[in-house]
Amino acid sequence: MKISFIGSGNVAWHLAQAFEDAGHWICEVYSRDTQKARQLASTLYDTNIQPDLNFSDSEAEIIVIAVSDDAIETVLERVVLPEGVILVHTSGTKSLAEFQNLVEIYSDVYVHTGVFYPLQTFTKEVEMDYKELPFCIESKNELIENKLIQLGQSVSDNVNRMDSDERFILHVAAVFASNFTNYMLTISHDLLDREQLSFDLLKPLIQTTIYKAMLSNDPALGQTGPARRGDWKTTGRHLEYLQETNEDWTEIYRLMTDKIRNFYISK
Amino acid sequence: MKISFIGSGNVAWHLAQAFEDAGHWICEVYSRDTQKARQLASTLYDTNIQPDLNFSDSEAEIIVIAVSDDAIETVLERVVLPEGVILVHTSGTKSLAEFQNLVEIYSDVYVHTGVFYPLQTFTKEVEMDYKELPFCIESKNELIENKLIQLGQSVSDNVNRMDSDERFILHVAAVFASNFTNYMLTISHDLLDREQLSFDLLKPLIQTTIYKAMLSNDPALGQTGPARRGDWKTTGRHLEYLQETNEDWTEIYRLMTDKIRNFYISK
Repeated sequence: MKISFIGSGNVAWHLAQAFEDAGHWICEVYSRDTQKARQLASTLYDTNIQPDLNFSDSEAEIIVIAVSDDAIETVLERVVLPEGVILVHTSGTKSLAEFQNLVEIYSDVYVHTGVFYPLQTFTKEVEMDYKELPFCIESKNELIENKLIQLGQSVSDNVNRMDSDERFILHVAAVFASNFTNYMLTISHDLLDREQLSFDLLKPLIQTTIYKAMLSNDPALGQTGPARRGDWKTTGRHLEYLQETNEDWTEIYRLMTDKIRNFYISK
Repeated sequence: MKISFIGSGNVAWHLAQAFEDAGHWICEVYSRDTQKARQLASTLYDTNIQPDLNFSDSEAEIIVIAVSDDAIETVLERVVLPEGVILVHTSGTKSLAEFQNLVEIYSDVYVHTGVFYPLQTFTKEVEMDYKELPFCIESKNELIENKLIQLGQSVSDNVNRMDSDERFILHVAAVFASNFTNYMLTISHDLLDREQLSFDLLKPLIQTTIYKAMLSNDPALGQTGPARRGDWKTTGRHLEYLQETNEDWTEIYRLMTDKIRNFYISK
């Protein structure tokens, strides 16, 4: 398929690569930051840098809007689309109905709309295997939906038809599972760093924690630690130390300890 | 070496197994709950169930106290030890000085003391490879410390000499890295479960999150998500949904979002 991108962030970077690896042609890349568009295009085989949002002459069958949620409306206000193109966004939160509505307000020509949400945490510099990458696909039009599913399946074995409500909840869950988890690891890293202790010490523990959660399919079963045991002597000592160290970490420790305890008492 | 255990929880279960696998003899197991001592002993090759805390006739060179921090003092009050034995605890939080002090108060005979802290989240039912398991070892007596290090190295390639202050901080960091992380996964699981969505959808995301944190050696570099981007439209929508769903999850989402934002603003 012929595919163009609006946006040059982490998502555009990885999706463009994944699509090209799967044999699709990335026709154009547009970014507010032309320098970034140029960088992205330079990693691809035969991709033009689109200087503005006028895609009326584009050969693309699919245009992917891979920008932050806030910027989607601005893009739709300005973009000029070729009739009949499939326009998709890559957001976890934006509903198809809302997107469709904005497209109808701003576009002069008829286009198809859909969602192509990759559930992953992307960093440009970190290569990844796309075979297991979950794609969540949605379109009101079954033919279009099938085409998007086909595109997804050319990259990954984990393609899911999913409506906007489900996708939204998946996104909330992903924030807990990935963003908040990563921040907990950041705190643990920084705690050790203050004392010149190596983060390597924690790695086997972190790996086992994740391994157990995956294996059981229910992380609640593997919960351990002082909060779980109700070992208030230990949590008290930890809090004493944290209070002298970092206010934010103290607040997080206190809240998490309370909530873990609540959770297992109410079980 | 000849080793006995006081306690029959997750730590005793795994350490006894690891020591036996490495060729040591587990002489006795004592537990307040005799049924549990019997269960543990039944998984070992030639281990007696010790009916009470009188170890005066024990052949053990090392006695491992693997009970919760709160119970350590109670054990020391009651235990009768053979002269010259090496008595170790397995706690992250209890300092050697404090332990030594209690031993001196309660024991009629001279014994050596030390710490043998395995930094891991243990669940009886989940087997694990002990080769990378970090042991944190401490003793005031260098000969005893070397003996404990030798014992650790018979099981694992990751044996560290570590003082009580360092071990304490490592334990605090471990609570963030493992216990709190696991609870974040629990929330994400339960969010999906409410909507009959499979936890499998999140697994590639979780694995990449952890993989990136390990690879970079600094999880802060891989932080993504709406809080990191300052995408308040998205966090607002997430909070709206969470408020209607679960109060505890709402509080955690709000606090984590604030703290992640603070962290990256102050950078």
